[in-house]
Amino acid sequence: MNTLNESAKGVYLITVTPFKDDGALDLDSTDRMVDFSLESGVTGLTILGIMGEAPKLTAEESKLFVKRVLARVAGRVPVVVGASAAGFASMGELTKSVMDMGAAGVMVAPAATVRTDDQILAYFDMVNHTLGSDVPWVLQDHPVATGVQMSTRVVLSILKNSPRCVMFKHEDSPGLAKLSAIRAASDKGELRRVSILTGNGGGLFLPEELVRGADGAMTGFAYPEMMVDVCAAYARGDVDAAFDIFDAYLPLARYEQQQNIGLAVRKHILAARGAIASATVRKPGPSLSAMDLADLNRLIARQEKRLAQLKLSR
Amino acid sequence: MNTLNESAKGVYLITVTPFKDDGALDLDSTDRMVDFSLESGVTGLTILGIMGEAPKLTAEESKLFVKRVLARVAGRVPVVVGASAAGFASMGELTKSVMDMGAAGVMVAPAATVRTDDQILAYFDMVNHTLGSDVPWVLQDHPVATGVQMSTRVVLSILKNSPRCVMFKHEDSPGLAKLSAIRAASDKGELRRVSILTGNGGGLFLPEELVRGADGAMTGFAYPEMMVDVCAAYARGDVDAAFDIFDAYLPLARYEQQQNIGLAVRKHILAARGAIASATVRKPGPSLSAMDLADLNRLIARQEKRLAQLKLSR
Amino acid sequence: MNTLNESAKGVYLITVTPFKDDGALDLDSTDRMVDFSLESGVTGLTILGIMGEAPKLTAEESKLFVKRVLARVAGRVPVVVGASAAGFASMGELTKSVMDMGAAGVMVAPAATVRTDDQILAYFDMVNHTLGSDVPWVLQDHPVATGVQMSTRVVLSILKNSPRCVMFKHEDSPGLAKLSAIRAASDKGELRRVSILTGNGGGLFLPEELVRGADGAMTGFAYPEMMVDVCAAYARGDVDAAFDIFDAYLPLARYEQQQNIGLAVRKHILAARGAIASATVRKPGPSLSAMDLADLNRLIARQEKRLAQLKLSR
Amino acid sequence: MNTLNESAKGVYLITVTPFKDDGALDLDSTDRMVDFSLESGVTGLTILGIMGEAPKLTAEESKLFVKRVLARVAGRVPVVVGASAAGFASMGELTKSVMDMGAAGVMVAPAATVRTDDQILAYFDMVNHTLGSDVPWVLQDHPVATGVQMSTRVVLSILKNSPRCVMFKHEDSPGLAKLSAIRAASDKGELRRVSILTGNGGGLFLPEELVRGADGAMTGFAYPEMMVDVCAAYARGDVDAAFDIFDAYLPLARYEQQQNIGLAVRKHILAARGAIASATVRKPGPSLSAMDLADLNRLIARQEKRLAQLKLSR
Repeated sequence: MNTLNESAKGVYLITVTPFKDDGALDLDSTDRMVDFSLESGVTGLTILGIMGEAPKLTAEESKLFVKRVLARVAGRVPVVVGASAAGFASMGELTKSVMDMGAAGVMVAPAATVRTDDQILAYFDMVNHTLGSDVPWVLQDHPVATGVQMSTRVVLSILKNSPRCVMFKHEDSPGLAKLSAIRAASDKGELRRVSILTGNGGGLFLPEELVRGADGAMTGFAYPEMMVDVCAAYARGDVDAAFDIFDAYLPLARYEQQQNIGLAVRKHILAARGAIASATVRKPGPSLSAMDLADLNRLIARQEKRLAQLKLSR
Repeated sequence: MNTLNESAKGVYLITVTPFKDDGALDLDSTDRMVDFSLESGVTGLTILGIMGEAPKLTAEESKLFVKRVLARVAGRVPVVVGASAAGFASMGELTKSVMDMGAAGVMVAPAATVRTDDQILAYFDMVNHTLGSDVPWVLQDHPVATGVQMSTRVVLSILKNSPRCVMFKHEDSPGLAKLSAIRAASDKGELRRVSILTGNGGGLFLPEELVRGADGAMTGFAYPEMMVDVCAAYARGDVDAAFDIFDAYLPLARYEQQQNIGLAVRKHILAARGAIASATVRKPGPSLSAMDLADLNRLIARQEKRLAQLKLSR
Repeated sequence: MNTLNESAKGVYLITVTPFKDDGALDLDSTDRMVDFSLESGVTGLTILGIMGEAPKLTAEESKLFVKRVLARVAGRVPVVVGASAAGFASMGELTKSVMDMGAAGVMVAPAATVRTDDQILAYFDMVNHTLGSDVPWVLQDHPVATGVQMSTRVVLSILKNSPRCVMFKHEDSPGLAKLSAIRAASDKGELRRVSILTGNGGGLFLPEELVRGADGAMTGFAYPEMMVDVCAAYARGDVDAAFDIFDAYLPLARYEQQQNIGLAVRKHILAARGAIASATVRKPGPSLSAMDLADLNRLIARQEKRLAQLKLSR
Repeated sequence: MNTLNESAKGVYLITVTPFKDDGALDLDSTDRMVDFSLESGVTGLTILGIMGEAPKLTAEESKLFVKRVLARVAGRVPVVVGASAAGFASMGELTKSVMDMGAAGVMVAPAATVRTDDQILAYFDMVNHTLGSDVPWVLQDHPVATGVQMSTRVVLSILKNSPRCVMFKHEDSPGLAKLSAIRAASDKGELRRVSILTGNGGGLFLPEELVRGADGAMTGFAYPEMMVDVCAAYARGDVDAAFDIFDAYLPLARYEQQQNIGLAVRKHILAARGAIASATVRKPGPSLSAMDLADLNRLIARQEKRLAQLKLSR
C-alpha cells in the first residue's frame, strides 16, 4: 500500500490535466501521461494542485480525473492530491473521497485570508481536526499563490502540532534560508524529521536546494527526467553532474516558468513528446503565438545539443 | 413563474445560512428564515453570495440548502443564487443545477485574477457563453471582495454585450457617482434600462442611492424591514420618512457591518428575533463576547426607543 | 512644554492640508484651521498622516506647513506629526526636523512590506533605534491603509519593547476586541498603561470604543466638536448623552467616510464653516458633483434639526 | 549634451547605491562603480529606481548621490533618474532638480493606487502635465512592483498621448507578447517608434526579447558585460553567440534575481570585483550566510569554466 510518510524523496511530479481539442477532459491522455511520468523515473505524482487547471474542472470531472490517475498508477507510486479548499467542510469531504479512492495523502496550503502568526496556527489546528489522525498530509508554503507569509518559526510550530504532517513543500522565495533552518531543526533533534520537497520557482533552484538538505522536488516540468536525473546524481554524490544536468535544462525551464503562458508551453512540449494528445489549455487560458513556438524550437534544439555535448541525453 | 428581469425592484435580501449549535446545516431554520424574510416584505431573496458562509458548505450541503429555500419560497418571490466560481465549468454546472431547481437567475462577480479593462470584458464574454441565452443574471460589482475595479465605462460595455444581464448589483465605494452615471446612460437611451440594486457598505447608503435612481437594495441586515420601509417610503414620495427610518436603524446597521464579526452580530439578532434557532457561525468564525452583547443590547434598546418616538415600529 | 505622554486623552484632530483655488499651499488658511480646531475644544492635533494629502506636498511644502501649524498652535496643545516613511533614514531625518520645530511626538505605522510577526517586531526595533530614547511616539495600527495585520500579541510585544511608545492609535476593524485586550493587559498590570486613541472607520465606533477603555479619538471630521462633546459626555458619566450626540452626527460622518470622495466632502464643509478659504483638493483628487452637494445639504439640514431637537447644538 | 531620445539602445545599467561598512553613503565607491560600469560597455545608467535602496536615502543623500554620479559620468553616457513619487508635486520638484544637474531624462511608473484603464490614462496625463514639454521620460511597466496592470492598448494610448515619452521599459511578465505588439504598432506606422529596453525578471529573457524587437536592456546585474555582449552579438547578427553568452551567465543571473536576497548577492559580487568598497546593504536588509556564499562560489567557478570553454571570457 502506498501511504505517504516522512521518508518520501525523489521527484513528485505535479501533472497537467489533459483536455481534448474541444476542451473536454481527456481520460485516455490521462493514462498516457501517467505512463510517461512513471517512465521518467518519478517517485510520486501530485494532482489537483492550487496552480494549474484543477479549478477549471467541475466537481464531477475532478473525481473522474483522480479516479483515472489512481487506477492507472495502480499503487506503483504514491499519489498526493491537493485539498486546499475555501472551507473545511469541502476539504474534509474531498479528502475522504480521494483517500477512499487510494490517494497516498493530501496537500494543504493556508487560506488566503489568514495573515498573523496566530491566525495561521489556528488555521492548521482546524486542518488537523478536519483531516483526522489517519490521513498523511503535506504542508504547502507557497506565498506567491496564497499571499500568506509563514515564518520559519510558524512552519516549525505547525510541524510540531501536526503529527500527521509528513512533508513540507517548500515554495517560498527567497527560501533557501528557510529550508536550511527547517532542516537544521530536525538535525538538532528539536523536531522529528519530515520530508522536504521543493518547488521554488518551478524547480529553478533545485540543485541548491538539494545541497541545503531537500529530499527532492515536487513541481511540474515538461522534462521530468531533468529533476529525476539531478536528484539521482546528487544522491550518488556527483554534485557536478547534478549542476551540469540542471544547467542544460535551465534556459527552457526558465521559459516554461513564465506565469500564465508557462502552462501552454508545458502542454505544447508534452504533446510534442507524446505524453498527451492535445496541448489544449481549457478556456480561459493562453495559447502560443508563432513567435512563442519559434522560441521553443530554438530552446529545445539548443538543449538537445547541450545534452549531447554532456553525453546526458537519455 | 418567477424569472428575474430588468424591472426588479424593492429588497432582495441576502440571507444567512442557518446552522445548528453543533455546526450542522439547519434545514428547519432555513424554512423559518424564509418565512421571516417574506413576512418582512422583501421582494426577492439571494443565497450563496460571495461573502457569508456559502464557502463553508460542502457541494452536497449547498444543493440541499438551495433546494430547501426554493421549496419554501414556492415561487412567491424570485430567488437569485450566487454563481461566481473559480472556473467556468463549475459556474455552468452550478447554474444549470439551480435553474433546474427553480432559481430566478444567478449572480456573477468577476474572478479576482482579472485586472485590465480588456481582461474584464473578456471574462464576461465567457460568462455570457457559459450561462447561455436563457439564464437571467446579475452583474455584481464588489471591488472590496474581488479586488477588481470596473470603471463605469466597463460596466456599460458589459451591459451592452450581455443581453441576459438584467440587473446591476452596485457595491463599489465610493460608488454614488458610478450609480448616477449608469442610470443616466439608460435615461439618455444609450442603453436598455436594467435594474440596479445596491449593497454599498451593506446598505449604509441606501437612501442616497434611491435618490440616485437605484431600484432598491440587495444586501443582508438583521432588520430587513428597515430596507423594505425605506424603499416603500421613498417610492411613495415621502423622502423625509425614508431618511428618518434609515437614520433610526443606522447605529445598529453600522455595528452589524463590521467585517468578520458582523455575521455573528446578524445571526445573534436573527436568533433573538426567532428567525433561526441558533446563532452559530460555522467554524472557523467569530463569536461574540460579553462586551459585544452589551453593545448590542444598548443599540437595540436605543433603536426601539427611537422608532417609538418616530412612531415607526411596526 | 508639550511633550506627548501616556496620559494623553480627548480628541487629537487629524487636520486637512489647505490649498488655494489654484492648488498652492494656503498658509493663511492653515492659521484659520488651527484656530477653528482649537476653538472646537480638541486636546491635540495630528498632521501629515498616512491618509490625506501629505504625500502631495513637496518636502519643502511639508516643512513650511508643519512650521506654520506649530507656530500658530504655539504650545497650546501637543502636535503629533506622521513620520511613516519608506526608509529609516528619511524617518529619522523627518523626526529630528519636526521635533526641533516643536512637535510633541511622531506617529509610525509599519511599512507595507512586513508580514510575519517576526518581521513586524524587527521593524519596530528599527523604529526604536531610529527615533532614539527622547522622542515619544504613537504606534498606528491601520491595516486597511498599510496591509499589515498586527495581532493583539504583536501589539503588546511592541509596546513592551518600546519604552518611548506612549500611545496606541487604534484603527483596525473589527477592532473592538483588540482594544479591549490591550486595555485589559495594562489593567492587569502586565504592561504599563499607554494612551489609546481610536480612529476606526474615521471615528464611526467612537462611543463603543470609549466604553472599551479608549482615552479618546485621533481622526478627522468636519465637525470636530462632535468628538469633543462625545468624549466629554462620556467622561462626565453621561453615557446616553454620548450616544445621542454621536447618533445625531452619524449620518453625515458615514457620508464623509466614503473612501476618496470623503476628503472633498470634509473640505467642502470646512470651507462652508469658514475654517479654510477653499475646498480645493490638490490634483489628482475628487471633486463634488451637484448631486453630492444636494446630499450634503440634506444631511446637514437634518443634522441641525436633530441637534436642535436634542438641544445639542452649541 | 546627453538627452534621452527614441533611438536609445544597448544597456542602461541600473546601478546599486554603495554604502560603507557602517551604512554611510559611499561617494568614493560611487565613482568607482560608475567607472566599472562604463568600462563594461554600457550605453547608459539608471539611478534611483523603484527597486533597490533609493528609498533608504534621505532627500539630502539622494541629491548628493545623483550629483556625484552625474559628475563622474561627465556626459559620456546618458543618465536616467527614477522619478516615480507618491505625489506630482514631489515628482515635479525631483525632475527639475535632476534635469538641472544634468540627467538625460526621468523614468516614471504608475502609482500603486490606479487600477482601471481610465485611471491609468488620467495618471499619465498628469505625468505629462507635471514633466512639461522639455523633459524626455521613460514609461516603466513593472506590475510586480507597482501592482498596476497596463494592457497593450493602454500602453499604446499613453505613448500616443505623450510626445516626450521616448522609451518603454518593459518589465511585465509574461510580457513577450506585449513587447511584440508594441513593436508591431510602430512597425505598422500606427505610432512613432520609441526605444524599448527590457528588464523582465532582471534580464532573464534578454535574448528572446531582442528577437522580439527590443533595443536592449535596462536592469541591474553584477556582470553588466553579459548584457553588453549579448546585445552586441545580437546586433552583429550572431544570434547563436548571443544565446551562448546568455546561457553561460544564466545560472548566476537566476540566483541573483531572488527577491530580497538578490541585492546582497549583487553587492557581494560587485565588491569582490572591486566595483564598490563594501557589500553593505543598508538596514533593514538581507545579509548572506555561509551557505549562500558557498552557492555563489560554486556558481562563479562554474560560470568561469563555461565562459572559458566558450572562449567568451573578456
